[in-house]
Amino acid sequence: MPRDVSKRKLRAGIVGGGQGSFIGAVHHVAVELDGQAEVIAGAMSTDLQRARASAEAWYLKRSYDSYEEMAEAESKLEEGIDFVMVTTPNHVHFPVAKTFLEHGIHVVSDKPMTFDLEQAQQLVSLVESKNLVYALTHNYTGYPAVRHARALVRQGEIGEIRKVLVEYIQDWLMTAEEKTGNKQAGWRTDPSRSGIAGCVGDIGTHGENLLEFITGLKIKSLCADLTTFVEGRALDDDANMLLHLANGGKGILTCSQIAAGEENALSIRIYGTKAGLEWHQMEPNTLLFKPHGQPQQILRTGLGYMSDDAKAATRTPAGHPEGFYEAFANIYKMAIADIRRVESGQKPEGGYPTVYDGLRGMQFVYAAVESSQKGVSWVDMP
Amino acid sequence: MPRDVSKRKLRAGIVGGGQGSFIGAVHHVAVELDGQAEVIAGAMSTDLQRARASAEAWYLKRSYDSYEEMAEAESKLEEGIDFVMVTTPNHVHFPVAKTFLEHGIHVVSDKPMTFDLEQAQQLVSLVESKNLVYALTHNYTGYPAVRHARALVRQGEIGEIRKVLVEYIQDWLMTAEEKTGNKQAGWRTDPSRSGIAGCVGDIGTHGENLLEFITGLKIKSLCADLTTFVEGRALDDDANMLLHLANGGKGILTCSQIAAGEENALSIRIYGTKAGLEWHQMEPNTLLFKPHGQPQQILRTGLGYMSDDAKAATRTPAGHPEGFYEAFANIYKMAIADIRRVESGQKPEGGYPTVYDGLRGMQFVYAAVESSQKGVSWVDMP
Amino acid sequence: MPRDVSKRKLRAGIVGGGQGSFIGAVHHVAVELDGQAEVIAGAMSTDLQRARASAEAWYLKRSYDSYEEMAEAESKLEEGIDFVMVTTPNHVHFPVAKTFLEHGIHVVSDKPMTFDLEQAQQLVSLVESKNLVYALTHNYTGYPAVRHARALVRQGEIGEIRKVLVEYIQDWLMTAEEKTGNKQAGWRTDPSRSGIAGCVGDIGTHGENLLEFITGLKIKSLCADLTTFVEGRALDDDANMLLHLANGGKGILTCSQIAAGEENALSIRIYGTKAGLEWHQMEPNTLLFKPHGQPQQILRTGLGYMSDDAKAATRTPAGHPEGFYEAFANIYKMAIADIRRVESGQKPEGGYPTVYDGLRGMQFVYAAVESSQKGVSWVDMP
Amino acid sequence: MPRDVSKRKLRAGIVGGGQGSFIGAVHHVAVELDGQAEVIAGAMSTDLQRARASAEAWYLKRSYDSYEEMAEAESKLEEGIDFVMVTTPNHVHFPVAKTFLEHGIHVVSDKPMTFDLEQAQQLVSLVESKNLVYALTHNYTGYPAVRHARALVRQGEIGEIRKVLVEYIQDWLMTAEEKTGNKQAGWRTDPSRSGIAGCVGDIGTHGENLLEFITGLKIKSLCADLTTFVEGRALDDDANMLLHLANGGKGILTCSQIAAGEENALSIRIYGTKAGLEWHQMEPNTLLFKPHGQPQQILRTGLGYMSDDAKAATRTPAGHPEGFYEAFANIYKMAIADIRRVESGQKPEGGYPTVYDGLRGMQFVYAAVESSQKGVSWVDMP
Repeated sequence: MPRDVSKRKLRAGIVGGGQGSFIGAVHHVAVELDGQAEVIAGAMSTDLQRARASAEAWYLKRSYDSYEEMAEAESKLEEGIDFVMVTTPNHVHFPVAKTFLEHGIHVVSDKPMTFDLEQAQQLVSLVESKNLVYALTHNYTGYPAVRHARALVRQGEIGEIRKVLVEYIQDWLMTAEEKTGNKQAGWRTDPSRSGIAGCVGDIGTHGENLLEFITGLKIKSLCADLTTFVEGRALDDDANMLLHLANGGKGILTCSQIAAGEENALSIRIYGTKAGLEWHQMEPNTLLFKPHGQPQQILRTGLGYMSDDAKAATRTPAGHPEGFYEAFANIYKMAIADIRRVESGQKPEGGYPTVYDGLRGMQFVYAAVESSQKGVSWVDMP
Repeated sequence: MPRDVSKRKLRAGIVGGGQGSFIGAVHHVAVELDGQAEVIAGAMSTDLQRARASAEAWYLKRSYDSYEEMAEAESKLEEGIDFVMVTTPNHVHFPVAKTFLEHGIHVVSDKPMTFDLEQAQQLVSLVESKNLVYALTHNYTGYPAVRHARALVRQGEIGEIRKVLVEYIQDWLMTAEEKTGNKQAGWRTDPSRSGIAGCVGDIGTHGENLLEFITGLKIKSLCADLTTFVEGRALDDDANMLLHLANGGKGILTCSQIAAGEENALSIRIYGTKAGLEWHQMEPNTLLFKPHGQPQQILRTGLGYMSDDAKAATRTPAGHPEGFYEAFANIYKMAIADIRRVESGQKPEGGYPTVYDGLRGMQFVYAAVESSQKGVSWVDMP
Repeated sequence: MPRDVSKRKLRAGIVGGGQGSFIGAVHHVAVELDGQAEVIAGAMSTDLQRARASAEAWYLKRSYDSYEEMAEAESKLEEGIDFVMVTTPNHVHFPVAKTFLEHGIHVVSDKPMTFDLEQAQQLVSLVESKNLVYALTHNYTGYPAVRHARALVRQGEIGEIRKVLVEYIQDWLMTAEEKTGNKQAGWRTDPSRSGIAGCVGDIGTHGENLLEFITGLKIKSLCADLTTFVEGRALDDDANMLLHLANGGKGILTCSQIAAGEENALSIRIYGTKAGLEWHQMEPNTLLFKPHGQPQQILRTGLGYMSDDAKAATRTPAGHPEGFYEAFANIYKMAIADIRRVESGQKPEGGYPTVYDGLRGMQFVYAAVESSQKGVSWVDMP
Repeated sequence: MPRDVSKRKLRAGIVGGGQGSFIGAVHHVAVELDGQAEVIAGAMSTDLQRARASAEAWYLKRSYDSYEEMAEAESKLEEGIDFVMVTTPNHVHFPVAKTFLEHGIHVVSDKPMTFDLEQAQQLVSLVESKNLVYALTHNYTGYPAVRHARALVRQGEIGEIRKVLVEYIQDWLMTAEEKTGNKQAGWRTDPSRSGIAGCVGDIGTHGENLLEFITGLKIKSLCADLTTFVEGRALDDDANMLLHLANGGKGILTCSQIAAGEENALSIRIYGTKAGLEWHQMEPNTLLFKPHGQPQQILRTGLGYMSDDAKAATRTPAGHPEGFYEAFANIYKMAIADIRRVESGQKPEGGYPTVYDGLRGMQFVYAAVESSQKGVSWVDMP
């Protein structure tokens, strides 16, 4: 029976995100940023003391010792949570999402969607069988300039796409950070918690998602050169890939966590028969539009000429920079709007990454790893 | 009797910020961003229908028809608001702040502090007589790179300051926007609501505040050329000023709302005997440090070499851009921390702009207007 | 009797530019860059040994011990020089130019045109009485993007100009460089060789010239705050000025040689009723065009949409950066073309800075110094 | 018998470069820029009328109808040319160079060195058998910032190199420009004049040369995806490549002439165990140095902290931008210095690209084409 969600903030629960976590705190800010939801319950750590301290620091109403317990309890409460936020290491994404979906609770999950490809396929089936929202925080698609880029492609302003250059380079794992007690580094470089890929799963998938989101084109095949530069590390920390796109376009995707001096340098450049596009995550409110034979244009979020989709993702007037949190919050805003729709018997409208994007991400990771293992040769994507 | 605020979010009320407002929505996001406070009550518009609709849209618990009523009621409620946010047009800042302070309620107010200089002086006296927090949202001082700039100056890295260039230029009033029904433009160009200055009061004061905040130097005297370029407008929409600083340094401050193509271009450049500094609000996470004879350094928020003060104002790792809201939220974060301190009997620690900054801003406005009226001649600041 | 200059390079002589000089070497590269002239004679230093060594290093055909001797001798030679290049310290500009003009030899001179205002007025009269080319190397007007900016203003693309911001800031005199034996610093800080102004004459005049060149507007009055920051220095090393333009527009001009970390940061920003413009000398091939309400455009030299005037000043396809020498060479290219015209009985066509720009520059210097001496008050320009 | 070249400019002849040529005019400016050589003879076009008109426009002393005739005649003249500049389409590079070398005349040639790999090998042998200078204008290595990058790598500042990203993207062939009568486009897309590759030979080789020049590392193997996007074109106009470097490092090289909106965007980024480097040809005077864990540094040409090699390639103080011509001229400056040395019986000192770089370039082109033809699989470089 749908709840009445029309006159109140939604109630959210969080799994993971205990003190010391990076992404949990991001989800916390993002989910509440637009005043449409409040985090009230959590199973924030498997370290129970940390779980409670974390819940208290966030003034949560209810803290649980396990996500199973939380799903069970919340699903029965009159004022139980409307949706859960999954912010754990990768290997727990699937069981948590599955558990809450099975308890009739909507899910917003961090990426990658699951630990392995099989789980991803199972989750697709599960979500398809439920009338519940499942949103995946490929947060970079929440930037208004990214959404405007997609709009320009859709409107034909770029023409037929010929070449795409995607980069996501960082340096934070350029030394054996995982041996210093850094929790983030610990699980991300551990195959038993991260999955079959390191850098490719962690950030390469963002690149893949961004490319397919903006261009509307599928990667048809790829040739991926994964490398582990830091001695003793089990997973890749760098990758260079050649891409073939479904329309005959060509591309490059490079991702790295050992690129000295780089912070979080996600960027995409797209070249079509009519124009080029360029976007950099670290200057997110600017989109370069490069029509052939005419001056390059600096498109800026918050200005009147932007597309409706970009405007819907923008809160401030031009020149008042929005950033990472606001883009992240845009995913939540759309997911929350859909939860309200579903709970009031309407059809969801989407706009955020879904279980299909999550599956696509896992397929990408598997193709990349397979390509690299086969001597860096070409592998088709599904 | 102090309340126990240790185990809960603070409760905030808002005056102003009704639908269509810009800055009210900013305060809403900012005050809640760190999960330390929640807006629960409001007197959001003098248009009562708008006031209620606005309160409902934000899921407030209580909506009032006037701020007087709100102060009266909330001060008596067991679960009344801990502090009020003043987000009205300028001419109402003072009476609202005064009313809530007199009801024993902490105040966070938008700038300029008051409508005129006399009110500013009264408010200083009032605040000095109360054991209450008064914070003024000169929000640009909330940026971590700005705080790092101040730290570098304090540490002597810049040497003796010789030259300062401050700019704050926009274009949103380059046509008679106030005649199109734009609410923002309407009151900002109206002397009866905005005060004796237009552009100088609205954004010039941010420049003045930024300069004095970072350099720690007072403006000693100024020579200000205020212009009204748009026909029929009563207040200045552009100003150029020469500055003399207390230490013998020289400066320029230019502000404009008619600078075609500019968004919200606040910047500061500082030149000392040892090094230069450069910061641009529209790329807020970067601070250029220019030591004499050595390579310029690109200082970036989120990295380990930043000062403690910058780190305390930073939430994300480097390369995950924080922006306008996060800087604004930093002012709230510090004010809320002080409210918690005061309510639990501790001494406030500050860090945010106060009633003295507000007075300084009004003095600056008055000096600039006087200088311009006297044929653009030199006027001393108090 | 005009010479036949149609089938050969022009022959140039140089006064000044001996080894250790900066600007002499620049003139050498610039004058020959387009293969239209060759430097064959010189009086390169008053230090006769240096003069000869310098001439030999440049493979000059003839070296003279004094410019008087050179003017006398060359004017009588069948294959004597067609024009002279004046690259001495300021106090010698006038006598050299006068001497060669009186010997019927065209002149290209470095700026400022003369040592003082009286000389400037005399030189105007002298040039007006001769059918000879006099070109002044206000070299920054030689940049194609600057010429395009002027074209945009002339075409009305900017609308009525309201605000102009001009900067020229450096740091090379931020310490007492003149006491280290640096020749450049020596004469530039010496009133007996440099004139009544230091920084304002050396680089402030470039700013003034650029402003008037692009906007086509005269500075009507100014209020200038000149400072000498480095102890023991006799001339200004920094200045901030408010400007009133002939059309009612307002402006700022700041110049400095003590701005720590700045190299040669000449820039101009212009704001009109229709659009803005922005140009930075250190990225000279880019001009930002900011039409109100539309995306900013990055105009780039070498592309098809540029104006004819910009194209005539561009040698390479877009993206092959031209720089300081090429802009300088553009002044020579136009002056040389006029010398060819005059020598073959045609009318000169101009395009380069002339004696009138030189006079304007001296008037600007005098007004600025007067303003500053009168307590930084307003002074009218002629 | 060596000539006395000590007290005069060198005499240069040019083959190619007739009116309408791009690169011929560049060589003309570059060779004379430092006042060390003068072009006096030419065989500038196979179109004899154009050849003579071109020679006249440049005021050459002698114009020839063919390069064979020129080599024969000049080698016998007392005041014959000291060296020849080869600026023809690719298929003529080898015969011209061979002819002049066999006549005892030094050669400076545009790249690629020859039409095919066999010619390249022959030329290596020929040059090795002569005591003559052969310089190849891989002009981008002439930039001071590039030379500083190499110095930093050599000094160990970057550590062991792990990842290199090289790009060279343009858009001037994104439509069938060769069908419009554009001479440049005509021969560059014609296999009978350009060789087996289009874009890869024209600009990809610059990328390869830059990479090996700066890093000192050889490309060990590559996997290259060459594409012809413009219909009806016989040669590649785009390529993406994965690279394996000799030390175990990985890389990407992408080049394109169909990248809408790009001008001449050559760039390189290098990531080592200690620091990163980034350089963009379109802002050539800046080199970003990114030491791990410390602020990025903006290294600028013309400043005191640059390496000797960078200083030797810099003519102006910082902030007076040097560009494409000046970098090109640096190759000539070094080659001319060596010609002077050889002619006076000294040993050449190099510093410019030689016949071995030319051979390397041809090997790179052949490997890339082979890889692409074999299904974009890995091919070893010699």
